[in-house]
Amino acid sequence: MKPRIAITIGDFNGIGPEVTLKCLTNATLMKTVDPILIGSAEVFVAIAKKLKIKKTFSVVQSALQKVPAGSIPVLNVFTAREKNIQYGVLAPDAGVCCGRAIEHAVRLCLDGSVDAMVTAPASKEAMHLAGYNFPGQTEMLAMLSRSDRVMMMFVSDSMNVGLTTIHLPIREVADNITAARIIEKLEILHGALVNDLQIKTPSIAVLALNPHAGENGMMGSEEKVIILPAIQKAVSQGINAAGPFASDGFFATGKQKEYDAILAMYHDQGLIPLKMEGFDNSVNYSAGLRIIRTSPDHGTAFDIAGEGKASPKSMAAAIRLAHTIVDNRRKK
Amino acid sequence: MKPRIAITIGDFNGIGPEVTLKCLTNATLMKTVDPILIGSAEVFVAIAKKLKIKKTFSVVQSALQKVPAGSIPVLNVFTAREKNIQYGVLAPDAGVCCGRAIEHAVRLCLDGSVDAMVTAPASKEAMHLAGYNFPGQTEMLAMLSRSDRVMMMFVSDSMNVGLTTIHLPIREVADNITAARIIEKLEILHGALVNDLQIKTPSIAVLALNPHAGENGMMGSEEKVIILPAIQKAVSQGINAAGPFASDGFFATGKQKEYDAILAMYHDQGLIPLKMEGFDNSVNYSAGLRIIRTSPDHGTAFDIAGEGKASPKSMAAAIRLAHTIVDNRRKK
Repeated sequence: MKPRIAITIGDFNGIGPEVTLKCLTNATLMKTVDPILIGSAEVFVAIAKKLKIKKTFSVVQSALQKVPAGSIPVLNVFTAREKNIQYGVLAPDAGVCCGRAIEHAVRLCLDGSVDAMVTAPASKEAMHLAGYNFPGQTEMLAMLSRSDRVMMMFVSDSMNVGLTTIHLPIREVADNITAARIIEKLEILHGALVNDLQIKTPSIAVLALNPHAGENGMMGSEEKVIILPAIQKAVSQGINAAGPFASDGFFATGKQKEYDAILAMYHDQGLIPLKMEGFDNSVNYSAGLRIIRTSPDHGTAFDIAGEGKASPKSMAAAIRLAHTIVDNRRKK
Repeated sequence: MKPRIAITIGDFNGIGPEVTLKCLTNATLMKTVDPILIGSAEVFVAIAKKLKIKKTFSVVQSALQKVPAGSIPVLNVFTAREKNIQYGVLAPDAGVCCGRAIEHAVRLCLDGSVDAMVTAPASKEAMHLAGYNFPGQTEMLAMLSRSDRVMMMFVSDSMNVGLTTIHLPIREVADNITAARIIEKLEILHGALVNDLQIKTPSIAVLALNPHAGENGMMGSEEKVIILPAIQKAVSQGINAAGPFASDGFFATGKQKEYDAILAMYHDQGLIPLKMEGFDNSVNYSAGLRIIRTSPDHGTAFDIAGEGKASPKSMAAAIRLAHTIVDNRRKK
């Protein structure tokens, strides 16, 4: 049974619809999944036409509705018109369409109409203009699927990274590094590695918060007081975690290759090395949720929207990862 | 005239003396500089013997004293004995020797007996045990050379990085990001690029503090309130600075190749990408000081001390960079 995967439109003034439509023309990929687009049919049709992507679309009323062979089902959740498309522009209507698509896709995941959802890149600012006041899609997904246990995780060939804190100003990071939070993230990460990625006894490296891992308390006490005890607690629960490691030295010596995943303390600490190892190769996965949601690792790229030159590589990887996780969870 | 370069012993229980002695056997390198070792002659002799490095040493009373051809002058600043060497051990006597060597080398730089100093890796903890209460060597150098304008800078083939804050816990970083400090660091960095590295019109990329460069204020206001105005001020002073750039996206897209230097806001933000691009290839340079001081980019490596397997690559690069800067400053 091919997994049914809802793909949300993202911000239609960015490259989201483009990378999605390009994936629909990838025959190898499309042999393995049944996609359902969520957003505005008119926008998808207009962008496909502009990019000369020859696909037929069928507006459906339900995710389970049959469509003619070769046609792509689209669930219209907001009737944006072709004239609403303004490539590269921050606009509230795009934020509304983006947000509604996410809300709808979560419902389809929860009621079992689809097996997973893949979200095209959203503009947080456009979503704010539209009244969706979330720091990011991950936090929105957690709320919509009624779960407070979620972790932003990036999956790639070279490394898997989980973030302890996500969209926080650096000023607020240290106060949000608590033992309870680290243990929870280690549990989520361990669970995702075992259940979703089928790594039997995964090893996890935990990064330090401070430079030189606090250098024995001289540059911050969190390593001694919070992070190390949290690691020890997780180890006592059977999680194979080690650290805290000074982050510059860790990546300098290629230690990421020795662990199945890395738990970073804050956004840029995890994402600088991940993206340096291979931008466009990694997938953003919302680990810990009941539903399965993946997303490309890039943003809306307003600067190249509508030009046809966006790479669908990470979007394709996001669809493949969603498929893999559906399969792995079915096996349990 | 070959530049006279003082090389401080560093922590003698680490790999400092080893990488220094290995550089002394590099004939090509030694043709270009006159080294003077600062520390304990007995320790240098003992470690050379252990590593089977055939060199003769002459204890000198002044940095200007002549020694027989081929012999290496050593200024004894602390009589540590062979039996004091404890490879891999944190010990106060090593901290004393390390600290005194630095103090002495600074004096030699200030009085013109040497042209530059290169410091072998120190253990901050051992130096603290010895009563040297500095967050790092850079801060100590600034105090000893009576300058409060200093910036930790890393110079490598692939990128040059300056740090706005250095050895601070993450908790204290945001409060230390001020417009005055950023402008000062940009001035120091610009000056070092122009005068010390002879880059005529250098371009500098300034990294953001917060994830997504604050995403228009949603994840921190420092970019709008502090960093951007500081960049604009620096630009009005004739410094070619741009930013602030979200750090993960900056390195993801290889933007470091487009700028002569990068100003990072905190330690790991600059050092993760620098060390990923090539560990052991970069040199730590204390930009902004009257004196010239370089240092390898690695630490004491207590785990491999005394084993003879430490690479002298970064130490050699540090000596070469000191030479280059001496030459460039002489040309002015």
